[in-house]
Formats: sequence, structure tokens, C-alpha cells
Amino acid sequence: MSAPSLGPALRVALLGCGVVGSEVATLLTTHRDELASRVGAPLDLVGIAVREVSRPRAGVTGTALEALLTQDADSLVREADIVIEVMGGIEPARELLLAAIASGASVVTANKALLAQDGPTLYAAADEAGVDVYFEAAVAGAIPIIRPVRESLAGDQVERILGIVNGTTNYVLDRMASEGLDLDEVVAEAQRLGYAEADPSADVDGHDAAAKAAILASLAFHTRVSLEDVAVEGIMGLTADDIAWASRTGQVVKLLAIAERTTDGVVVRVHPALVPETHPLAGVRGAFNAVFVEASAAGELMFYGRGAGGAPTASAVLGDVVSAARHRVLGGKGPIESSYAQLPVLPASQALTRVQIRIDVQDRPGVLAKVAAVVAEHGVSIEAVRQAPVGEVAHLVVTTHAARQDALDKTVEAIRGIDVVDRVVSVLRVEGI
Amino acid sequence: MSAPSLGPALRVALLGCGVVGSEVATLLTTHRDELASRVGAPLDLVGIAVREVSRPRAGVTGTALEALLTQDADSLVREADIVIEVMGGIEPARELLLAAIASGASVVTANKALLAQDGPTLYAAADEAGVDVYFEAAVAGAIPIIRPVRESLAGDQVERILGIVNGTTNYVLDRMASEGLDLDEVVAEAQRLGYAEADPSADVDGHDAAAKAAILASLAFHTRVSLEDVAVEGIMGLTADDIAWASRTGQVVKLLAIAERTTDGVVVRVHPALVPETHPLAGVRGAFNAVFVEASAAGELMFYGRGAGGAPTASAVLGDVVSAARHRVLGGKGPIESSYAQLPVLPASQALTRVQIRIDVQDRPGVLAKVAAVVAEHGVSIEAVRQAPVGEVAHLVVTTHAARQDALDKTVEAIRGIDVVDRVVSVLRVEGI
Repeated sequence: MSAPSLGPALRVALLGCGVVGSEVATLLTTHRDELASRVGAPLDLVGIAVREVSRPRAGVTGTALEALLTQDADSLVREADIVIEVMGGIEPARELLLAAIASGASVVTANKALLAQDGPTLYAAADEAGVDVYFEAAVAGAIPIIRPVRESLAGDQVERILGIVNGTTNYVLDRMASEGLDLDEVVAEAQRLGYAEADPSADVDGHDAAAKAAILASLAFHTRVSLEDVAVEGIMGLTADDIAWASRTGQVVKLLAIAERTTDGVVVRVHPALVPETHPLAGVRGAFNAVFVEASAAGELMFYGRGAGGAPTASAVLGDVVSAARHRVLGGKGPIESSYAQLPVLPASQALTRVQIRIDVQDRPGVLAKVAAVVAEHGVSIEAVRQAPVGEVAHLVVTTHAARQDALDKTVEAIRGIDVVDRVVSVLRVEGI
Repeated sequence: MSAPSLGPALRVALLGCGVVGSEVATLLTTHRDELASRVGAPLDLVGIAVREVSRPRAGVTGTALEALLTQDADSLVREADIVIEVMGGIEPARELLLAAIASGASVVTANKALLAQDGPTLYAAADEAGVDVYFEAAVAGAIPIIRPVRESLAGDQVERILGIVNGTTNYVLDRMASEGLDLDEVVAEAQRLGYAEADPSADVDGHDAAAKAAILASLAFHTRVSLEDVAVEGIMGLTADDIAWASRTGQVVKLLAIAERTTDGVVVRVHPALVPETHPLAGVRGAFNAVFVEASAAGELMFYGRGAGGAPTASAVLGDVVSAARHRVLGGKGPIESSYAQLPVLPASQALTRVQIRIDVQDRPGVLAKVAAVVAEHGVSIEAVRQAPVGEVAHLVVTTHAARQDALDKTVEAIRGIDVVDRVVSVLRVEGI
């Protein structure tokens, strides 16, 4: 069989040359022939925009790629067919991508912050210009999750997404569970090993996960969900004792990004949650990510893989580049995101969830009845109560059935006010059941 | 925002009206408006070809769909824009799909047997006609695996695929492990519950998994792999004892479909294998499926979900229909499969694997040394040996390092010939480490 003839080369511009950018540049070069045959045309990397050309870069400095470095990003994006943005941050990434789209280029971006804040502006601009915007690498790194949600489930209805979308916090929780360590110790360890940033706050406070939750929710529910719509709670309040109790009750603690369709609209939140050990998400270890999707017809799906790192992220970028490039060669266009269903986005207080409340109570008869009465008064029903005496005080673990978050909050407040209750030790939501 | 205007309706023909077909017809009808907005044109179901119109069908008989039933599949496929084939079997499915393609229709099929036997003929015909052929539902039901391999990993290189792609056998192995039951008992139970066919041989003999392995391998390695290229071994030889030993050594037994790129070519095989309990595939329970992919840049990925059933399979079919329909409205075409890399397809004897050999030996000094010497003579190296006395005989469990399958086969034969060896109890390959 003779090789199919190739069309004229496509001009590819790369914005950013950090860990991901240099890997993308390398893959474009080393897989040049294979990419050309998959696309139907060669992909010519015509420039790599950086802030400072002279800075040394692993994998680039001293190679043929070095000659492609330029500080003139504005000119570069205007002469490209496909613009890959892996520089991060809101500006100048936003302006450069809009300029690229306006001049007719298709764009591929890994920029979760930009998409969570202003994705719909980009999608609408791309639709108007008739070009593609792809962003598989922005959520869960190498894991193909955007494409399945946008395309494979296009004839189905997504009901709920539960995601472990931050590798740093998953690593931290995993180590706390396996070693019985406290959070501070593990965060320090993760920093030493390079799994956590010097300033880990975007990870441990849940903001990185929240940006990804906003993007996933927007796609899954065809609704504009931005970062401010996401209720966020990080892992800083978790103790070794919480994790140990979880294990004792057949559960693990995970930081979950949750996006759900309810009867009234969409609720999106990020917080630590208890997950049964038998749930597929419970087995996601170390710095891996996974996204669990419940769809009306498809049922339960899970997508698992590396959520970060130069090569995994570059793989996702390249997959998008091939799709965008094929559309330029063969005609066609990727999914259109601007036709929004626009479901109402509800506050997290309206989410349906369950909680496991651990309470130190005085060890005397009638305590359980008092607590149960207070819970019932708030319209919340109890699924299970466990009692464990610990010296003078007794430890009560109350797990509720599903109820609205605001009712559960009021219930916990009321429990704090009971005379025989010494202390509410912890309140953790239970998900995945 | 005003709703985008819709193009002229696309004519959709459905071949087959069993569990999947009736679900597809129902989804096309109930989600009509949403599908139209995603596609940019309404999808009109114009006919459902069946062998016998008068047979009662759940979800169809007595509804508006009943009027669409026809026995004239030949005419139906020639007047459609998109043909969905969920009738199964080789003929007349093959002829009908080729006729549809020849008359310019795009096709969506869930027919794994046909694709494993003659997929390349369909792909080539579709490429020539400039139409799409999509088949997400043919492998692992609702799990989006074809699309990620074809598209998301298009800029990466797949090294290996390990799949649990047959739900019946996974259910059987899972129950054997959890209940300590023998295979026959669990198969009978699965038949009672409807998880296994009255004749379960295609499942338990591994042939269903082999068809899916051939399709996955073809896509992942851009190489024609047909059913005859797949070395198949079912689960019938497994005993409750094998499963119990696996558990004792921190492993589970899974029926795996394995497709790998080696230095010399591609090897594709289906057989039971020991998988470490910590491997993501080990947590795949019941009738669920999962496909674990190792790619050069992306690293380890896993895709998990329901591998069968009317609604899950229909969800995958609908996702494909939306993609094919969008191409007809907006222009463009799905991935082209006829540009094959054509790597050599090697026999399974050349696969690199490890084995765990359980041997009953006479309980006297020097036995271990004799066995070790025989293994070494065959160029195979031992990773671990465990010894457990069982009354008069001792039980030896030898786990090898990776070696070629043919060398391992010869090693096992030679072990059988050792004078102090009473019996080779079982030989199981070890994968996923």
C-alpha cells in the first residue's frame, strides 16, 4: 500500500517552554513522520514564545529547538494555523489566544485557570471564527476525560461527576492513611520529593481542584460554571485521627471535586469526603487522578491516570493538536461549547449529601436518645450510630442518610448545643454510595 | 441567546432491534431535541430493520416505534445518511454495512465479531467513500476506549493494553474469590442471574475477549490484527485452589486481553493471569470491564465501566452517532484507519511474561536446588520461591522473572520430568507488574 500523499504543512506555534512546553516541542519533532501520516499533513513547529530567550532550558538549549525561541508572541500567534498555549496564568495567555482565534488559528490549551475563569469567552470566539479550541490537558493531565464527556457521552446525560483531580492532595491523604502521619509531616515530605510546590496552598486549599471542577461541570452540564460558583474546602482541617477512623469504618478520605445535576440545577463543590473502600475511587493511590462519571444510560464510568507531569500533559496536548490539525486538513470542526443548556447553578448549601459526625459525649445513659432526637428535629434521618467508650467520655459516630447541606449544617450546630455533648470532633461528608 | 438554526434532518436507519437496538431507538426519540442541538440538525429515525416484524419487542411494540419496523434492510440502508448496526453476526451485517457505505452513508456498529474478522475491509471502504465508521460500543460496552485510543493518544505511542473486557468471566472469577466457590458452581449461578448465556462457552473460553483484543490491538498499533492472530486460553482450567493461592500471595486472578508492542512486532493474547492486588485492574469487580493502557508519554491510564447491557451499549452507540452526524452537518471525517503501520504480528510464544508455578514435590532436602537448576538451565531467572509443607508432599511456588513464553513452556515441561517432582499443580502467568 502506498503512503497517502500529504497536504501542505501546518504552522504550529508554541506559547511557553517550561516542563510541558519543552516536552511538546520534543514530541512534535521526534514523532514528526508519524504525526504527519495521522494528520494528513506535516506539522511544522514555527516558533516557541518565551519571556526570556536566553534562559537555559532542559531539552531545548543546545538543540535545534533553541533557534525557534522568540519573545515576540504577538507576531507568532498571528502567523500560525494552530497555537498551543502552555504558559499558564490569565494574561497574556488570554489575549494571545483571542488574537490567535481572531486571525483564524485553532487553539490547544492546558490552562485550567484561564478556562475556569473565562472559558466561555474563548469557546464563543472560536465558534464565531469557525476554529477549534481543545483543552484535554487542562483537567487531569494525561487522562482523556474532556473528550469522553464532550463526545462519547454526547448522546447520554451526565448525572454526576466525582473527581480526584489534584495529585498532591491525593498523595498526602494516601500517605496519611498508609503511615498514620499528620498532615503537616506529609506535606513537608511531599515538598522534599517534589510532589508539592514550595507554596502548596493552591493544592491543599482545594483551589486547583475547584478550577478543574468548574471546567468539568461546564462541559458535563452544558452550563456556564465559573470558579466563583464552586464551594471549596481544602484538606487542612483533616487529622491523622480522621483518617484512622475512616479506615476503621471501611472508608478512605479523598479530596473530591463533585459536580451534580439536581432537580433544580447544578451544584459544584470541592471538599474532603469519606468514600467506601469498595468504591473504584478508593483505590486511586499516590499522585494519580481519576474521574468517576455517572451517566443516565452509560451507568458508572471511571477514567484513571497521571494528572500532572511534563510527558503525560504533553501527550494530552498532542492528542488535541492532532484533532485540530485533522480538521484543518479534512474540514470539520470539534465540539461547539457555546450552545449552553444554562441550567441554574445552585449554592452548595443545596447539595444533597450525607455526613459522618464524630462526637465526644458524656458516658451516661440517654445520650444517644438526645442526639437522635436533635437530628430528627432537623428532618435528617440517621443511617447508623456507632458508640465507642474512650475513658471518661464516650465517642459517638453518627452517619446520616442523604439530606440537604444546609439542614445538615444546622443539625451539627444543634448537636454542639446539647448539654451532654462535650465536643463535635469532626464532620465529614460521605460520597460515592 | 437565540437557539442556533438547524440544518435539514439526517436520516438514521437502525439494523437490529434487540436489547441494544430498542434502547437506541428509545434514546433517539426521547432525546430528540437535545441531540438535534448537539448535532446541528434533527436525527430522523426512518426505519428499524428486523428479521420478523410481527415479533413482540419490549419498548417498541405498542409505541410509535412499531411503525418503523421493516424486513427490507437492503432498501433501508440505501436511503439513510447514518446506519446503526446492532444486529450482530457476520452476515448479513457485513453486506448491509458495505452497501450503506457504498451509497454514501456513515456507519456506527457494535459488532465485535465482524470487526475482529473483517474490520479493515470496512475501514478501507469507508475511507474510499469519505464516510465515517465508528464502533465504540464493540469493545467494553459503555466505556469510551476506542475514542481515547484513536484520538486522545494520537500524538503518543501505546506500548501495552491490559483489558478486562468480558464481564461474565470477571463476575465468575470475582465470585470464586469472594465465596471460595468452584468455577462450575459460579457459572451455574451466573446463568441463573442472567450474567452468563445459556451456552457460556464464548465467554469462558475467551473468544469474546479475543475479538475485542483484536480490535483494540489493531487500533492501538495501527496494524491489522485479526481474530486468528490472538492466542486464546479461557478460564475453564482454573480451580478454587488457584484463586485461594493467588489471594494468599497478594494477587487476584483476572482473564486479561493483552496487546503489546515488542521490539520485533505486536503480540496479542487472552488468558487468565495473576495481577497484584495493588494494581488498578485488581479492583475491577463483578461484571464491570476496564482497559488499562500504558503509553510512552501519557504513562498508565485506565478506563472503567459497564461492558455490556442495553442502556450502556446504547449510550456508546449514540455518542458515535452524534460524531458521525456532526461530520455530515459541519463537514469533516472521523479517524482514518486504513493507513496502517503494519507491524509484524508475532505468535504468543514470543510474548514476554512471568509465571507462577505451583509444584507438589517430595519433602526432602535438595528439592529446591534441583528445581532451581532446571529453571536456570532454560535461561529463566527466579524471582521468588515459597515452600509450604502439605503432609507428605511439600508445595513449592516458583515465580519467575520475565522470559519468553516458549522458554517458560519448556521450563515447565522440564520441571515435570524431575524425579522429586510429584506434580505441577498449576501454571499461571503474572501480569501488571
